[in-house]
Amino acid sequence: MVKFGQNITNIQTTMNGKDYFCNRRTIRNYTEEKIDRRFLGELLEAASHAPTTGNMQLYSVVITQDDAGKQRLSPAHFGQPSVMSAAAVLTFCADFNRFVKWCELRKARPGFNNLQAWLWAVEDTIIFAQQFVTLAEMNGLGTCYLGTTTYNADRISELLGLPDLVVPVITVTVGSPSSQGAKSDRLPIEAIVHDEQYKDYNESGIARIYAEKEALQDSRKYVEENGKENLAQVFTDVRYPKADNEHFSKVYSDLIRAKGFSF
Amino acid sequence: MVKFGQNITNIQTTMNGKDYFCNRRTIRNYTEEKIDRRFLGELLEAASHAPTTGNMQLYSVVITQDDAGKQRLSPAHFGQPSVMSAAAVLTFCADFNRFVKWCELRKARPGFNNLQAWLWAVEDTIIFAQQFVTLAEMNGLGTCYLGTTTYNADRISELLGLPDLVVPVITVTVGSPSSQGAKSDRLPIEAIVHDEQYKDYNESGIARIYAEKEALQDSRKYVEENGKENLAQVFTDVRYPKADNEHFSKVYSDLIRAKGFSF
Repeated sequence: MVKFGQNITNIQTTMNGKDYFCNRRTIRNYTEEKIDRRFLGELLEAASHAPTTGNMQLYSVVITQDDAGKQRLSPAHFGQPSVMSAAAVLTFCADFNRFVKWCELRKARPGFNNLQAWLWAVEDTIIFAQQFVTLAEMNGLGTCYLGTTTYNADRISELLGLPDLVVPVITVTVGSPSSQGAKSDRLPIEAIVHDEQYKDYNESGIARIYAEKEALQDSRKYVEENGKENLAQVFTDVRYPKADNEHFSKVYSDLIRAKGFSF
Repeated sequence: MVKFGQNITNIQTTMNGKDYFCNRRTIRNYTEEKIDRRFLGELLEAASHAPTTGNMQLYSVVITQDDAGKQRLSPAHFGQPSVMSAAAVLTFCADFNRFVKWCELRKARPGFNNLQAWLWAVEDTIIFAQQFVTLAEMNGLGTCYLGTTTYNADRISELLGLPDLVVPVITVTVGSPSSQGAKSDRLPIEAIVHDEQYKDYNESGIARIYAEKEALQDSRKYVEENGKENLAQVFTDVRYPKADNEHFSKVYSDLIRAKGFSF
């Protein structure tokens, strides 16, 4: 690691971690090898040193290693094979239950049933999850995020026995990689970085930013397989159709309210 | 790095990255040294390989390096000194503007003005920000998250010229550390990890979990300085009072709606 006080301008030639970070890949299939529970605990412990709002640590993680538990979770994730294949399924939850219980036992009056507080918890949860993912990957494990966590969060909440003020936010499957996985394409970095002011995109700018992605063999395959005119339509009509997004927004919004956050 | 295919059970004795991850600390004060813009770009480029929902990369970052820009942002962050002291202030935004513009130009009909889509963007944004923070810290830079971003997000949005469908989520100040900073305490890991089912906390469990935190010299100082009975009351009455949380929830909620997300 570059040491404290080292001149910043020198660092660019030896960027620490670049190899891992630029070449990381999501792993959806795992071998049958188990993960030592203590090792999982050590990774989570190390990850818990990631930044958190006001040092409140507004998260919990539920580890599912039992086959029966994975079997129950699987439909909530639409049967994505990485759930059953994983050595462990980690459901990261925004958690104000622990903190509020502490406040109440100390006769402190919590005011956290609102959008801001819920967002702190979501931020804390994702930062913690991402730090775990980085650590797991750096230690040779394969991981995959399941965004479906916010779709059927009501079912997941029931299965894991989540109390009030605890809401599932993101799931990570983890195991020993059964293949190296493919590296995902990314937009050119200029497309997402703005200096001093947000520079909005015009038509030719958008065309330039998405050109490489649209030209990928995989992209062309998705377009053809789904009988669409272009890749954008695969996203809007097949992967993330408006009706689905609205349905699952309602389910999640109802759950958040049922758990005690009102917004 | 532990190599692909290495036996997982062997890894626990040589956990990669543990030293950095367990000992990281937030840095709020920086030297006057600038950060090379290309180096910042390289760090962001490496961070952009972090996982993202459906590979949509629903984020943008606005870099503020000009003193005038930092001066304008400072009040939105309640004058926290790390803004003016930082070599760069990075405002990470949930961004559906770029993706929706692409969809519309391709005659694809986006259905992303809802809670689910907004959450994907928030998740993408925070994962990207956290990956940047890790990379920056591993390269000897100091960083500090500013949660105030969601408080005065309306003002920040105006200052940075954010269009519809772009909402500030989190800010990171970054620079060369002027001191080593203090390591923050964390709850015992058992307090946040649940096996198979969420185990709710009883009174003695809460007391045990928070005992170390309550006993810290800093905690006792905060309690005394603020004339409170205990640390929990410092959180509820001084740091995060209900009225403030509700006020800023309304401001942020109004902004999200004004930007085109309805929930």
